[in-house]
Amino acid sequence: MSTIADVAARAGVSKATASRALSGRGYVSTQTRERVEAAARTLSYVAHSSATSLATGRTQTIAVIVPTVGRWFFSELLAGIQESLLERDYDLTLFGVPEDSSARAHVIDDLLPRRRFDGLVAVGIQPDSHDMRQLLRLDRPIVSVGPHSADISAVAIDDAAAARIATEHLIDLGHSEIAFLGGGDRTDALTFGDARRRDGYRSAMDAAGLTARSLVIPASGTMPSGYEAAVELLGNRRTRPTAVVGVCDEVAIGAIIAARRVGIAVPTELSVVGIDDHQHAEMFALTTIRQQPREQGSTAVQLLLRRLDDPDAPHQHVIAASALVVRNSSAPLR
Amino acid sequence: MSTIADVAARAGVSKATASRALSGRGYVSTQTRERVEAAARTLSYVAHSSATSLATGRTQTIAVIVPTVGRWFFSELLAGIQESLLERDYDLTLFGVPEDSSARAHVIDDLLPRRRFDGLVAVGIQPDSHDMRQLLRLDRPIVSVGPHSADISAVAIDDAAAARIATEHLIDLGHSEIAFLGGGDRTDALTFGDARRRDGYRSAMDAAGLTARSLVIPASGTMPSGYEAAVELLGNRRTRPTAVVGVCDEVAIGAIIAARRVGIAVPTELSVVGIDDHQHAEMFALTTIRQQPREQGSTAVQLLLRRLDDPDAPHQHVIAASALVVRNSSAPLR
Repeated sequence: MSTIADVAARAGVSKATASRALSGRGYVSTQTRERVEAAARTLSYVAHSSATSLATGRTQTIAVIVPTVGRWFFSELLAGIQESLLERDYDLTLFGVPEDSSARAHVIDDLLPRRRFDGLVAVGIQPDSHDMRQLLRLDRPIVSVGPHSADISAVAIDDAAAARIATEHLIDLGHSEIAFLGGGDRTDALTFGDARRRDGYRSAMDAAGLTARSLVIPASGTMPSGYEAAVELLGNRRTRPTAVVGVCDEVAIGAIIAARRVGIAVPTELSVVGIDDHQHAEMFALTTIRQQPREQGSTAVQLLLRRLDDPDAPHQHVIAASALVVRNSSAPLR
Repeated sequence: MSTIADVAARAGVSKATASRALSGRGYVSTQTRERVEAAARTLSYVAHSSATSLATGRTQTIAVIVPTVGRWFFSELLAGIQESLLERDYDLTLFGVPEDSSARAHVIDDLLPRRRFDGLVAVGIQPDSHDMRQLLRLDRPIVSVGPHSADISAVAIDDAAAARIATEHLIDLGHSEIAFLGGGDRTDALTFGDARRRDGYRSAMDAAGLTARSLVIPASGTMPSGYEAAVELLGNRRTRPTAVVGVCDEVAIGAIIAARRVGIAVPTELSVVGIDDHQHAEMFALTTIRQQPREQGSTAVQLLLRRLDDPDAPHQHVIAASALVVRNSSAPLR
């Protein structure tokens, strides 16, 4: 297929001039423009990207499906994916697929099979679910951000380990009355990562002989949800814990705000630990487990493009780094 | 051009069966598949969407450029745009264009001219800027979210009016020492909307004869930025105001957190008013000016599709609704 360089060479002009002449943007003399257009016709040069894609079979487009862009993790992740694709000259087609929505079923069952794209980044789709089976049927390279399974590449932190480390940090400080804010007992109502975090909390409590003191309080991953759960938990003096692990920083920050509201001092009367290192964690002096979703987005793009280059390459599971960051919201038991 | 219905009719099967046969997804007998494939060949039916787009000239794709997805307003807006496009069977191609970044220039100057899309939603691009002139040269329908100008359709709240109403609310409560958190004196370093909000604050102060007491404290639109600006402002007992207007709720919430940290009671010692009605506003009992970015996203899509249907339709400027929501962060001057 002819390139802009071929057209430029035939017309005896620079690539930049040929591009200006064909796009109609920027100054080119009439004579030059006509010469470039003639060269393009002779060489059957096609400038439009989707025409190009028909010829090469590549669309230079990556589809991204995300449950929401309204939470810190997802918006940071999307920014990382977007920047990495831009660097590599791929376009990003965005599909929002809220949990349990009709839009989710519509996108996964009806739209994606009819769309042209080279590969897919699937965020927060459970392995072995109906949705993931549908996505695998598309027969295009997929990288999952979040859950792992044998038949796709994936990137995520070890959610269970993150919650276990957060809980162990509090146990090391002498706490035994440690509550976990986030997720009830119905696993199906939780995101996959949130359920793994709850399990990590429980395994740390079990390992320390604190099984009987395990206390899981339902909270979705938002600041108001953490606030409401904590107001109720902290309001009862007899059951009040000395420490709390939030399923994510937003929930943990909600708990800190709730503690201030009901007059409980953090960290002297209540230690609070989160998971994420959200952009607001530092402002609240929150001890947390740091993860970097922008880097995970960049890693997902790398994994995907590797599979585009070599469809037979083995699947890879990347465990993204996470580390305990101790700030001032956790302290030894008084 | 042939449709799937034509193929189905010719092959004597239902549309669903024809679709299954051609896509290879779902069970169809070999005999039926061959009959459908023969009908498709006879009718030159092309299933791929970008092949379709070459035939019709439509790509069914809308490009969206946003400065960031990491702030509440932009992520809500993007969600609204995405949902509306999905309902109308358009795809969304996302381009991140951070202020003053090389990525911004690359996308606007180099990428967009080479991409195929039917129309563009441009978020937060200044009218009469180099960037907007480049976008207008693309010669495709554009809707701006934010700044208005004569030559494009746009949707936004009246930012100046929002800040004026917020300030007047505090003046009505008896305050005269009212500071504005957000934006220094260099207009070029502010987003267009933020600069308009600062101007609205000043006009309310001027109208009340409080020009000499106007005090604008630099703060970007984030909670930590509002927190830091407020810690400094409130730390000096001699210059401490009795009320604060935040350029947005994130900044106002940062100020509330700062006030608690330095032991100043809200609202008895300090009234705080924001602009946005952010998802956390209720948790902080924040008095604010409500805007609904999801609806603005939906409106932007409506305006754009109207122009796609009729390129000669007059441009429309939609002023989105905003309203004072009084909660518990503002009170009469003691």
